[in-house]
Amino acid sequence: MTDDGKEGPPSLEERVTRQGKRIGDRAVRIIRPAGGDFRRRGGHYVATPEALEARGRLGRWFQAARRILFGARLASEQEAQERLSVKTGLAIMASDNISSSAYATEEAMRVLAFAGVAALALTMPIAIAVCVVLAVVVLSESRVIRAYPNGGGSYIVAKDNHGVIAGLVAASALMIDYVLTVAVSSAAGVAAISSFLPALHDNRVLFALALVALITLGNLRGIREAGVLFAAPTYVYVFSLYALIAIGLFQLLSGLVVPPAAPPHPFAPAGTQLLTVLLVLRAFASGSVGLTGSEAVANGVPNFRPSETKNAVTTLVLMGTLFGTLFLGITYLATTIGIHPDHDELETVNSLLTRSIVGGDSPLYFIVQISTAVILALAANTGFTGFPRLASVLADDRFMPRQFAFRGERLAFSFGILALAIVAALVLVAFDGSVSKLVPLYTIGVFVAFTLSQAGMVRHWWKLRAKERGWQVRLAFNGVGAIATAIVAVVVGVAKFALGAWMVLVLIPFLIAIMWGISRHYRSVRDALTLDRFDAPLPTMKPRVVVPVSRLDRATLHALAFAKSIAADVIAVHVADGPEDAAEMQRRWERWGGEIPLAIVESPYRVLIAPLVAYIDAIGRQDPSRTIVVVLPEFVPRHFWEYLLHNQSALRLKVRLFFRKNTVVADVPYHVSQAYENVDQGAAVSSR
Amino acid sequence: MTDDGKEGPPSLEERVTRQGKRIGDRAVRIIRPAGGDFRRRGGHYVATPEALEARGRLGRWFQAARRILFGARLASEQEAQERLSVKTGLAIMASDNISSSAYATEEAMRVLAFAGVAALALTMPIAIAVCVVLAVVVLSESRVIRAYPNGGGSYIVAKDNHGVIAGLVAASALMIDYVLTVAVSSAAGVAAISSFLPALHDNRVLFALALVALITLGNLRGIREAGVLFAAPTYVYVFSLYALIAIGLFQLLSGLVVPPAAPPHPFAPAGTQLLTVLLVLRAFASGSVGLTGSEAVANGVPNFRPSETKNAVTTLVLMGTLFGTLFLGITYLATTIGIHPDHDELETVNSLLTRSIVGGDSPLYFIVQISTAVILALAANTGFTGFPRLASVLADDRFMPRQFAFRGERLAFSFGILALAIVAALVLVAFDGSVSKLVPLYTIGVFVAFTLSQAGMVRHWWKLRAKERGWQVRLAFNGVGAIATAIVAVVVGVAKFALGAWMVLVLIPFLIAIMWGISRHYRSVRDALTLDRFDAPLPTMKPRVVVPVSRLDRATLHALAFAKSIAADVIAVHVADGPEDAAEMQRRWERWGGEIPLAIVESPYRVLIAPLVAYIDAIGRQDPSRTIVVVLPEFVPRHFWEYLLHNQSALRLKVRLFFRKNTVVADVPYHVSQAYENVDQGAAVSSR
Repeated sequence: MTDDGKEGPPSLEERVTRQGKRIGDRAVRIIRPAGGDFRRRGGHYVATPEALEARGRLGRWFQAARRILFGARLASEQEAQERLSVKTGLAIMASDNISSSAYATEEAMRVLAFAGVAALALTMPIAIAVCVVLAVVVLSESRVIRAYPNGGGSYIVAKDNHGVIAGLVAASALMIDYVLTVAVSSAAGVAAISSFLPALHDNRVLFALALVALITLGNLRGIREAGVLFAAPTYVYVFSLYALIAIGLFQLLSGLVVPPAAPPHPFAPAGTQLLTVLLVLRAFASGSVGLTGSEAVANGVPNFRPSETKNAVTTLVLMGTLFGTLFLGITYLATTIGIHPDHDELETVNSLLTRSIVGGDSPLYFIVQISTAVILALAANTGFTGFPRLASVLADDRFMPRQFAFRGERLAFSFGILALAIVAALVLVAFDGSVSKLVPLYTIGVFVAFTLSQAGMVRHWWKLRAKERGWQVRLAFNGVGAIATAIVAVVVGVAKFALGAWMVLVLIPFLIAIMWGISRHYRSVRDALTLDRFDAPLPTMKPRVVVPVSRLDRATLHALAFAKSIAADVIAVHVADGPEDAAEMQRRWERWGGEIPLAIVESPYRVLIAPLVAYIDAIGRQDPSRTIVVVLPEFVPRHFWEYLLHNQSALRLKVRLFFRKNTVVADVPYHVSQAYENVDQGAAVSSR
Repeated sequence: MTDDGKEGPPSLEERVTRQGKRIGDRAVRIIRPAGGDFRRRGGHYVATPEALEARGRLGRWFQAARRILFGARLASEQEAQERLSVKTGLAIMASDNISSSAYATEEAMRVLAFAGVAALALTMPIAIAVCVVLAVVVLSESRVIRAYPNGGGSYIVAKDNHGVIAGLVAASALMIDYVLTVAVSSAAGVAAISSFLPALHDNRVLFALALVALITLGNLRGIREAGVLFAAPTYVYVFSLYALIAIGLFQLLSGLVVPPAAPPHPFAPAGTQLLTVLLVLRAFASGSVGLTGSEAVANGVPNFRPSETKNAVTTLVLMGTLFGTLFLGITYLATTIGIHPDHDELETVNSLLTRSIVGGDSPLYFIVQISTAVILALAANTGFTGFPRLASVLADDRFMPRQFAFRGERLAFSFGILALAIVAALVLVAFDGSVSKLVPLYTIGVFVAFTLSQAGMVRHWWKLRAKERGWQVRLAFNGVGAIATAIVAVVVGVAKFALGAWMVLVLIPFLIAIMWGISRHYRSVRDALTLDRFDAPLPTMKPRVVVPVSRLDRATLHALAFAKSIAADVIAVHVADGPEDAAEMQRRWERWGGEIPLAIVESPYRVLIAPLVAYIDAIGRQDPSRTIVVVLPEFVPRHFWEYLLHNQSALRLKVRLFFRKNTVVADVPYHVSQAYENVDQGAAVSSR
């Protein structure tokens, strides 16, 4: 085990010895770690995968199961360096936005239907209004991309320009939005399939949860954000819908009469409402669900190939064009043909439209429905990309628990992924897996974040007015964007307030308060722990040691021997059940005649912990500045189940003492299997 | 805080100093515990109730809630010394047996009804047969009482005379019996009430569970086994039923026609069976449920006033007489009047009988039904007396986990009470709270225990044949008892095998195997821990200390100062996320320039625990006999919820190291609130 020191880099021992010069004669001899567990890098050691191998049989099984489920570990250096072209970028980042076309038309129609079938004709003007807002958003977001080439999430833009609180508002709004992206997209994906497999409808919550579980697993494995696997479904969806729209337009233009497919349960609202302004605004708010997901491109600028900003802007514009044309095409055809939404959400409007145009048994119908389900699953996946990344940024800024900043063995933010999955699953269950029930909550968060980010950009340009030419144009662009998105945010908030938007408006300040509290806690801890001087010598401690003993056996002697080795001041304490027990213990202790004094405390109420702690308190009162070390003899049986056969007092004592100031608890486990061996070795050491 | 030593007994300090003579100059100065927490008794201290007072606010609330629910603590010295007269003894110990008359007739009838209404006439002969067996049991049990005046539970008698295995068979049979006593009595108690409040019937499981919970709470409070509270319901039950039987007999003898009350759902078995021998045996087995509970008197002999054996025997004989007459009276009237059991257990036979004789709205009807429910609750309570006491005897003999032998703050065997309540509740749920479904399992255990106990007595007298006169008569008594109970055991086992008795027959060996395993474990631990020599000197240890550090702050310095104070051999280990982190830590450490060498291990897979343990293993491999102390700097926040904001790595590391041989883990908590104060004190100490 000695180090020859000739070949290879200097051993740990040498390094320590070198360091030891400064330490004087107190240098500790440490050997270079043996075996394949470590390799050197510069002045320190690097743990190899062998160091992480599970040692026990149970541990190995657990590890193997883990590897099958999540894949092999990835080293930090293996972090993905792949960059996105416009083609793959469009497929991956735009899937959330483009997939909204699967339900945006239907959601607008469902609101208008309350004012009767005739009101459905208003769907088209509403779709046009939504597309106008989209155009404004695309233009102003392209400004964000140019200004924040390192990824301009709304949180960062708002925080940079309006301060922390605005940043936290945007962050909470976005976090809510990500949760709802997962919930809505999974629900809509199941709806696309259950449109032609009605048997699924009754268990739609269950299937949506299964979909979320599958996506979660994929993300814990660390899905690469690229590849044909992701790009293909997006393009299949886009092109099959274009084909459908082309066929539909051709039929209408050639004067063919397209009979609308009848929904299973035609829409029949209890009492037909008047076509009020509020209802139209509500329909607009529902339709503007199609604008969600358009922030993804601005968030992910650094993931593009150079020149990043140019590619990102191209992608953004393409995304808007694709979504806009699909949304307008679907809405035009659905209103012209006269599709009515199904009352019980048994079949989607898109499914009814496709059935009307090409028939429910044509290959195109199935291609459209299945690619819809897949692109919606990809859209749900964007929530799993966005939420953990935002949470990790917030955790780095100390607004979220540190666990969110930790990358798991597969380099994924496991904690954020699991948190998102759990919250989204709860939301799915609470809202019964219904897209229509979820949509009123959905849009508000997005537009709050948009507004803050656009307003932040206005300020950004204003601050740069002395340095940058043409800042007026840019400021105007983002000003229009801020006003438009603010109007939509207010419209959505007012129109959908009673339907559920109030929950989001209540939740945002609540989340901000939590994040603020977390940040304050971390700051107070940092302040409390920071060193005043870096050259402070270690304070000298003279701890006194207390050893609670329940009986006089090898485990106790082992603990007493340890106690004696760490301090001169050792006392054993025995809590006795009654006077007989006290006398018996006294007798045994005297017979043993060891070197440690024993105090006996009788507990007439048969309570163990409290008298012991009271006794430790009494000792502590003598000199409160001295640290008390409680040395606990603990018995480790061979098998885990055997723990049940031993009193769990030690654990309770440890919890109790953990909160006692200036108290150290030292666990001295005594393993049955080493019983004899160990005492002998101890004796051998003592005889040296 | 000094002790004047003039008045009062010698202080702890003096005692330690005296003991210190033997220890030489190593005597530790310990003050006499200050304040009202302790008082002296002989050579040791006794903790006063003040020592047990909760200190924190949360703790005080918890303690107050506990006191309201369970009552104030009782000292061991306050253990009940009350003895029972025949009058109270009969009410308390015999309630289990006497209450069986509430359902024994019905259970026999329910079996016979399968062979048609005519077969119900056989109920009376079966009741007579049961009473004959009862007489034999009473006679032979009275022999047990005389031979085992200290309480002759079947476990003890069987173990004494046939060895451990027979004892364990009897013990498992009795434990199963106690569980079923609780389940059957609660279910029957609810049935007595739901007979006139049918609305309860649908939720009978819920009400039975509530009854069990109530009895459990009472037992955790430590119900005194005496008082009018317990005696009254038993006598009300007995006398109201006697009144009912007298009225019924008078009516029949005076030639009045008593029309039988019709059950809500008359019994209509799917296919009427033949009246086979097996069916008759089954009916007998069901009726012999009335023999359960007759072992309670023999178990509790020492609880009687002197002369104990005489009082116990009188109680036993009275119990048999009361049960026998009630059982025969009820059965005679029910069969003569022509009561048929209700198919769905909506109304009990006893309720139907009482309604027939005195009408469903007479005061006597309600007195009978309510006192039946109460005596059944008392019968369930006997299970709570018997099971924890048996379990504690088994725990003292190391056949059950030690927790069962521990008396809680109210002197009750809390662990056994809770265990019984949980198992009985599970049984009630599994068997749907139905008396009829539970009865087939019930009787077998009792008769197995009886048989073993009687056979043990036969052997007992045989062993004493040289010393005792008249041993032949006693042996004959118990011989007849053994044969009679063995026959009933076989009859019940065969007749009810398929109906559920098989479960008990499977469970008994299973329980024995568990108890045997527990005993073997305790024995192996005792062997492993026993000291070979009592004068062995403590082995000398030279531990080496490892301090895992995540950053260089006050908490870390505190832990390093502690580490330095307990050993000369200290090394700090830092697990770095990557090369940058490693270099940064190295730089900071050098800038600090402290006295402790630092080893840095980079973990490219971001895993913390495994590389640390691998490094500790590497250190350990150098000299496996030396104990390694892992000193963990732990940060204690002000509020409990703040724990969620700190990584839980320390806990996982502790679990991992607990199983490492020859490793001590010392927790050094650093309290935020003492942050400044403590470092200053440390500095003060070092400057001395």
